[in-house]
Amino acid sequence: MKPTGLRIVEVGPRDGLQNLSGFVATDRKIDLIRRLAACGIQEIQAGAFVNPRTIPQFRDMKEVMAEVRALRDSGIVLTTLVPNLQGARDAVEAGVSKLDFFFSVSRSHNLNNVRQTPEESLSALRLVLGEFDRAPGLSFRVNLATVFGCPFEGYLETAAILEYVEKTARLGIREITLCDTVGWGYPSQVEAILKACLSAFPEVTFGVHLHNTRGLGLANAMKAWETGILVFDSALGGLGGCPFAPGASGNVATEDLVFLFRSMGIETGIDLDTLLNTASFMQGILPDTPLTSSLFRAGPPRKVPFGIGEETIPGCDS
Amino acid sequence: MKPTGLRIVEVGPRDGLQNLSGFVATDRKIDLIRRLAACGIQEIQAGAFVNPRTIPQFRDMKEVMAEVRALRDSGIVLTTLVPNLQGARDAVEAGVSKLDFFFSVSRSHNLNNVRQTPEESLSALRLVLGEFDRAPGLSFRVNLATVFGCPFEGYLETAAILEYVEKTARLGIREITLCDTVGWGYPSQVEAILKACLSAFPEVTFGVHLHNTRGLGLANAMKAWETGILVFDSALGGLGGCPFAPGASGNVATEDLVFLFRSMGIETGIDLDTLLNTASFMQGILPDTPLTSSLFRAGPPRKVPFGIGEETIPGCDS
Repeated sequence: MKPTGLRIVEVGPRDGLQNLSGFVATDRKIDLIRRLAACGIQEIQAGAFVNPRTIPQFRDMKEVMAEVRALRDSGIVLTTLVPNLQGARDAVEAGVSKLDFFFSVSRSHNLNNVRQTPEESLSALRLVLGEFDRAPGLSFRVNLATVFGCPFEGYLETAAILEYVEKTARLGIREITLCDTVGWGYPSQVEAILKACLSAFPEVTFGVHLHNTRGLGLANAMKAWETGILVFDSALGGLGGCPFAPGASGNVATEDLVFLFRSMGIETGIDLDTLLNTASFMQGILPDTPLTSSLFRAGPPRKVPFGIGEETIPGCDS
Repeated sequence: MKPTGLRIVEVGPRDGLQNLSGFVATDRKIDLIRRLAACGIQEIQAGAFVNPRTIPQFRDMKEVMAEVRALRDSGIVLTTLVPNLQGARDAVEAGVSKLDFFFSVSRSHNLNNVRQTPEESLSALRLVLGEFDRAPGLSFRVNLATVFGCPFEGYLETAAILEYVEKTARLGIREITLCDTVGWGYPSQVEAILKACLSAFPEVTFGVHLHNTRGLGLANAMKAWETGILVFDSALGGLGGCPFAPGASGNVATEDLVFLFRSMGIETGIDLDTLLNTASFMQGILPDTPLTSSLFRAGPPRKVPFGIGEETIPGCDS
């Protein structure tokens, strides 16, 4: 395997659980995050500090963080999503090592999602940075939502995306993830937008947050990798589907992404067998939410030479 | 949309139905094939002329062909899979416009599948060509199975693949499709094998037959397209899954493939709405076989500019 600088950010505990109708018990969330860490995942988005009336799933974020923050001692980056200063304060107090700020490039979507214009979100980001920019051991990432399509505004102009990347970078942010919030992204578009961003902002580390809603998640991820992206969000089991389309795929599944990279000879640091066991565990605690990841359903090929020695894994293919 | 020479071969009536446990009634097969033709698909693999004791699903091939052969009058290429001279005779008598001969590059798989060595299959192909090479209005394609992985022999050497491509081409065959029979293909491998074939045999039109078993179907298709492939097999609804892995994806779904190409601005000639309606029809006649295609589950984005004018389609994304 080539050393690559690739980083997979597990967002299952946040994006995967966010839209579930049922509350996942606090000890199960904690168990899930610990198991994910044991797979070799280096960065985990543990949840979100948002209004618990809006997203009741994360009303126990403080308790969850209190139990998992010790994972930082083994070098794991623990993040939570925060939309504003209050969320950032709660997250820092709870012990995150990174703040995942977010807003939508699409004005309609941001108004609908966090009841702010994108400019107001940028002001909130300014407040967050004003208070925490020099906090020791704390880093920042900004997640730009609806970059690859908005359910209200359709596909956005690249110029509009670049405008918000610039406004974000100008505040000193050096990590920006571009999010395909509703799964409309397609390979040629992903390539075009990423190339534009990478060439205009060489000082920024760009990542992608892709959904597999229409089956293009891995094709988009491959294109992003080929374009030079090294940071990929994904969710174990492909959780995170649209609640209005039962059975539709959600986030790119971590196991499918790891399998893709492994097939290309790219080291992820993540153990695929442990990951699949963790998916089984997760399916056990979410029996009413069938996981949509291909690898979980089919199992890996029994013989996987992929540059790391041939392995024999029980599979379907005989 | 760019004119491209792209050709999508619908193999759902064959590969999609082949592994179903229940028999699909003859009139429903006929209805399905006619509806597929009405979507704008130009080549349809209507089934297989094989031993009905081995695959009882195709015991009604003659009746099916008798009803659908009139589609040839509207320019549609009708093919069936044939493993030997008997199958070829039956297919020609039934009125196919193309013979889809097949064998596995992997000796173990071919022995297991058609009880012949690959060399014996080549001899059978020689007999078929001896009898039908000059038949008017009849063309030939050879499908090489297990090119991207064999459940018995693992991943094959490219040299072994090239050897059978050469032996096939030497018989005068000018269309060869490389099949990922068990869904083990991965993008870098697909690219490497296709590049080797395309450069060594410029006189051959190569196609790919991809499965989505591990979620890489569309990423592999995209890579094949980028490598210069113009012929793609796919099955409506992503049917064709492994019977040992319930819920696993099967063939690359026609609707997902059409959506991928459409997103890249590549004309397929296939109407996506009619295709999705046909998928709904197929789901109706196969209620126990949940379709795995992403687009069928999620619906297309409501706004699809993709170079052909923005459309509004009811979808999930609000």
